[in-house]
Amino acid sequence: MEQRVSLVTLGVRDLDAARLFYEALGWRPAPRPAEGVVFFQAGPMVVALWSREQLAEDSTVVDGGGWGGVTLAYNVASPAEVDAVIDEARTAGATIGREPAPTSWGGYSGVFVDPDGHPWEIAHNPYWTLGPDGSVTL
Amino acid sequence: MEQRVSLVTLGVRDLDAARLFYEALGWRPAPRPAEGVVFFQAGPMVVALWSREQLAEDSTVVDGGGWGGVTLAYNVASPAEVDAVIDEARTAGATIGREPAPTSWGGYSGVFVDPDGHPWEIAHNPYWTLGPDGSVTL
Repeated sequence: MEQRVSLVTLGVRDLDAARLFYEALGWRPAPRPAEGVVFFQAGPMVVALWSREQLAEDSTVVDGGGWGGVTLAYNVASPAEVDAVIDEARTAGATIGREPAPTSWGGYSGVFVDPDGHPWEIAHNPYWTLGPDGSVTL
Repeated sequence: MEQRVSLVTLGVRDLDAARLFYEALGWRPAPRPAEGVVFFQAGPMVVALWSREQLAEDSTVVDGGGWGGVTLAYNVASPAEVDAVIDEARTAGATIGREPAPTSWGGYSGVFVDPDGHPWEIAHNPYWTLGPDGSVTL
């Protein structure tokens, strides 16, 4: 198994509401979405929105009903960009879990939580290389 | 906010056990891991293993205690590769949630669940383009 991830699927309660949230952040779905699912081309991978109930069944797991131990992060090139993305998320209707601030590990980050309870850390990490294509290198 | 994900962090109970599981799948951590966290370079992004309790606190969420609506997928170039990865996961100690089989959407997939309850769908999707670098294009 190579070290890569092809797809991250986020389970949602209301597909249209979830799509509108990500569209409000500036994301655009793939032009021909499959029925009942929304796909976003996310750099070299895909982010999908799908019914949480169906995702649980398809994933052969029991839904714990809340957060389940997975957090996504989005890295940017400066603290000012962290501030800007957190403000975008606030405007789009996210809950701001942590306002942007310096972190214990020497970076700067904030957290927004999407309408389905999925947290995103928005981070500037001066120790990682962020490429012009958005790639992150340790 | 650009359409990309920089980092997926999986909350784990026992960091060494979780690292050993992913190493048994053939993954290799970054050479200088930070204390208490394991980073894998995963193509152009990063996958991290970290204490689930600390991740919940850092993510400003309450832990639901089980699965929480996020599933990862790993796409491969053929059904035979799906079979091979599921067998690798079985050997590494994963629970096999779904044995590989044709899917309703015209592909072929199986699911393994890692020791911390995180499901991975291993899929061959003939409608998506899988690049030689592992990138997926809708």
